Amino acid sequence: MIYIESKDNNFFKATKKLKDKRFRNKEGKFILEGFRLIEEATKANMEIEYIILSQENEEKLHNSSLKEVIGDDKIYVFSSALFSQISSTEHPQGVIAIVKNKKMIINLEGQFFLICDKVQDPGNLGTIIRTGHAAGVDGIILTKGTVDIYNDKTIRSTMGSIFYVPIFYDDEDFNIIKRLKNSGVSLVTTSLEKSKNFFEEDLKGKIMLAVGNEGNGISNELFELANKKVKIPMPGGAESLNVAVATSIILFEKVRQNLI
Amino acid sequence: MIYIESKDNNFFKATKKLKDKRFRNKEGKFILEGFRLIEEATKANMEIEYIILSQENEEKLHNSSLKEVIGDDKIYVFSSALFSQISSTEHPQGVIAIVKNKKMIINLEGQFFLICDKVQDPGNLGTIIRTGHAAGVDGIILTKGTVDIYNDKTIRSTMGSIFYVPIFYDDEDFNIIKRLKNSGVSLVTTSLEKSKNFFEEDLKGKIMLAVGNEGNGISNELFELANKKVKIPMPGGAESLNVAVATSIILFEKVRQNLI
Repeated sequence: MIYIESKDNNFFKATKKLKDKRFRNKEGKFILEGFRLIEEATKANMEIEYIILSQENEEKLHNSSLKEVIGDDKIYVFSSALFSQISSTEHPQGVIAIVKNKKMIINLEGQFFLICDKVQDPGNLGTIIRTGHAAGVDGIILTKGTVDIYNDKTIRSTMGSIFYVPIFYDDEDFNIIKRLKNSGVSLVTTSLEKSKNFFEEDLKGKIMLAVGNEGNGISNELFELANKKVKIPMPGGAESLNVAVATSIILFEKVRQNLI
Repeated sequence: MIYIESKDNNFFKATKKLKDKRFRNKEGKFILEGFRLIEEATKANMEIEYIILSQENEEKLHNSSLKEVIGDDKIYVFSSALFSQISSTEHPQGVIAIVKNKKMIINLEGQFFLICDKVQDPGNLGTIIRTGHAAGVDGIILTKGTVDIYNDKTIRSTMGSIFYVPIFYDDEDFNIIKRLKNSGVSLVTTSLEKSKNFFEEDLKGKIMLAVGNEGNGISNELFELANKKVKIPMPGGAESLNVAVATSIILFEKVRQNLI
């Protein structure tokens, strides 16, 4: 184990930089906090580079299965002052892992995809990933402008599902979405405008379902690619649904139609 | 307008107490923050007792329709230091209303109810209320132990739907739920155990759908009252769904069945 108390230490500085999305992207790794999530990551064969403990929680490692998955030279102990600069939870358990981004391979033979178009709230995106995992999607495609999946709040809200669902950032030109369309996957977008009632849509077969930004919905550029636009009927008086809620309704309608 | 700068002022002290659930219940009123929500409350004919502005936002009232719904003697201006003790948002707009709890009357002839059994997270409950409003439920029943609907995070997550959906706290003996059962409303609970596939359930007619606590699901006491237990099928690998997500799926399956 390596003990670090100085804020000028290079390993500490490199770790702290990972709180910033730009550095995460550049380095291809992210911060994962808490025993449950780290154990879930090891189960899912994610590559753990380092484990960092806070000083006063050092002994917790001995009761944990993490000890078996990582060498002693990859375990760091930070002073409480340093650890608190990395932690992003209200009641830290005193354990963090530095984990390499997952390499995701898109399955063009997949039947069931979800597109999140510029979803902004990390908690919403995390809940959407968890729901997509439960619904059995073959992949989630995020358009440019969607919040980072390795944001700490996103990761926490996925409850570990982030390690299992293939997730892709598409480029400005929607190249992934266009490739899927070329493979025969039909793009169905939600819309608040006058559209067909979603529940009347046939969702069997190869489908990409798309939900949009919290304030603005689906972007015009994505609308232009849509094979079908549909509306979730709202018999009550509310004007709109939370985006994670809308996603759940459409994904599980596909699940339902697949079952009948 | 009444200007207050002293933390010993009685009106300030009474207002601050409303941040505590016990006092809210005792007084039968709650704190509502931000122009959009306050305007939504006035549209919904909620009774606004007072408007409180922060010192530096005093002039904002002049551009607002709120000026017309409340007398000048009901408008207070707090110093920034006092206002920040009441506000619970990260970027306060500088306006708060003290609003009387809504009197809710349960419609025993209703066809469509939702039960939240000991839901703990304010954001989840707020999203559930918003979704229930969109789905057109006749009422939401909260069992004892469910988080307070007048919690500031709950209110914010409802996006104003809290003013429209009838919401009831049931007692320990589930008297409201029993009354609804006696009126012919069938109680359908979700369950993670071996149960019937939810989508195969006939939800036409008078139905109460119940979801449970984030960690423990439906309580045994409520299970005992259930007419039917059902499970949301999850073809993917996730172990569970977020409670607001599960609620959305079951409410909108009822919406779907009502439409066909």
